[in-house]
Amino acid sequence: MKHVLVCKVENKPGVLNRISSLFRRRLYNIDSLTVSPTENPAVSRMTIVVDATRTDARIVERNLYKLVNTIEVKDVTDLPAVKRDLALIKVHTNPDTRSEVLNLVDIFRGKVVDVAPSSVIIELTGEVKKIDSFIEVLKEFGIAELVRTGLVAMERGRSDKEVPAVAAAQQVNI
Amino acid sequence: MKHVLVCKVENKPGVLNRISSLFRRRLYNIDSLTVSPTENPAVSRMTIVVDATRTDARIVERNLYKLVNTIEVKDVTDLPAVKRDLALIKVHTNPDTRSEVLNLVDIFRGKVVDVAPSSVIIELTGEVKKIDSFIEVLKEFGIAELVRTGLVAMERGRSDKEVPAVAAAQQVNI
Repeated sequence: MKHVLVCKVENKPGVLNRISSLFRRRLYNIDSLTVSPTENPAVSRMTIVVDATRTDARIVERNLYKLVNTIEVKDVTDLPAVKRDLALIKVHTNPDTRSEVLNLVDIFRGKVVDVAPSSVIIELTGEVKKIDSFIEVLKEFGIAELVRTGLVAMERGRSDKEVPAVAAAQQVNI
Repeated sequence: MKHVLVCKVENKPGVLNRISSLFRRRLYNIDSLTVSPTENPAVSRMTIVVDATRTDARIVERNLYKLVNTIEVKDVTDLPAVKRDLALIKVHTNPDTRSEVLNLVDIFRGKVVDVAPSSVIIELTGEVKKIDSFIEVLKEFGIAELVRTGLVAMERGRSDKEVPAVAAAQQVNI
C-alpha cells in the first residue's frame, strides 16, 4: 500500500542525504519524493510516497523521527488531506490527431503549454489516479516525454462541513 | 544563479542516495528536488534546482554523469523549456477577509481546493516567480501552511513558430 509521509526537516545541507540513506538501508522503495522550502526559511518540507505495509510505514516514521534534523513526521495516508501531483506530458501529434488530443485535454481540464508542429506539451494537476488515467488515454498517440512532480499533501482545515455558500461555489477539483 | 538540471537515472534503490551524497560532498545547496517515475518504468526523472555559478553547475553535471546509474543529464536553465511548480497554500481567513482572498485567487488563476471556517487551501501552478509573488501577497492574511512540489522542467518542441491557430488559442500561461 502506498503511504504518504509529510516530513518537516531543518533546511541544512546533508539532511536529504541522511533521509535517503535511511530508506536505502531499510530497502524501502520510494515512489516519489519532493523537497522544497516552506513558509519558514529554516524548515524544508518533504513529501515521501513509499510502497510499504502499515507496519513498515510506522517503522519508517519512527526512524525518521530519530534523525536529529527531523522536526515533524506525519502519515497523512488516511487523514482528510488535499493531495496533488503535477505532470508535464509531451505527446506526439500530427494535423489529424491534434484536435482529438486537445479535446482530451479539455475533458481532463488540463492546459496546453507548448505547441510544436509534431508535438504538444500538456500540463495537468490533480490526484495521482486522475493523472494516471490521463496518461493511459494519451498512450495511443505516443508519449514523447513525461515528468511528474510527485505527490504533495496538506491536511484539510478543521470542520469542513461549515463551508459558506460563496466559498463552496469556488471549489474545484476537491 | 539558480540552475535547473534534468537528470534521467535508473529506477533502482540507492540511486537517490548516491546523488544526494554527491551534493553533500560538494556542499552545494539544493533549492528543490523532485523524483518520480517516467513513461519508462525502468527510468526515474529528477529535476534538481541548485544555486551555483555556471562553472560549478558544469562540474555538478559532469559529476552526475560519472555515477553509474545516470542515463542523461541536461542543464535546461538557458534552453527554451516549460518550467512549472505547484504550491498548496493554507491561508487564515475570517468572514471579513475571505472574499478578498478569493479575489486574489481569481487574479492569479489559482483554485480553492478546501474551505474551513478559519482557513482555505489554495492550489496554484506556474513559474516559480509567479508563485513567489502570490505567496508574498497572501502573507498579510497569515499563511498557516505551505508546500511546494519544487520545479519540474521540459524542453519545448522544435520550431515553435509554426503554431497552428486552433492550438494557439488553447495555449495558457506560456
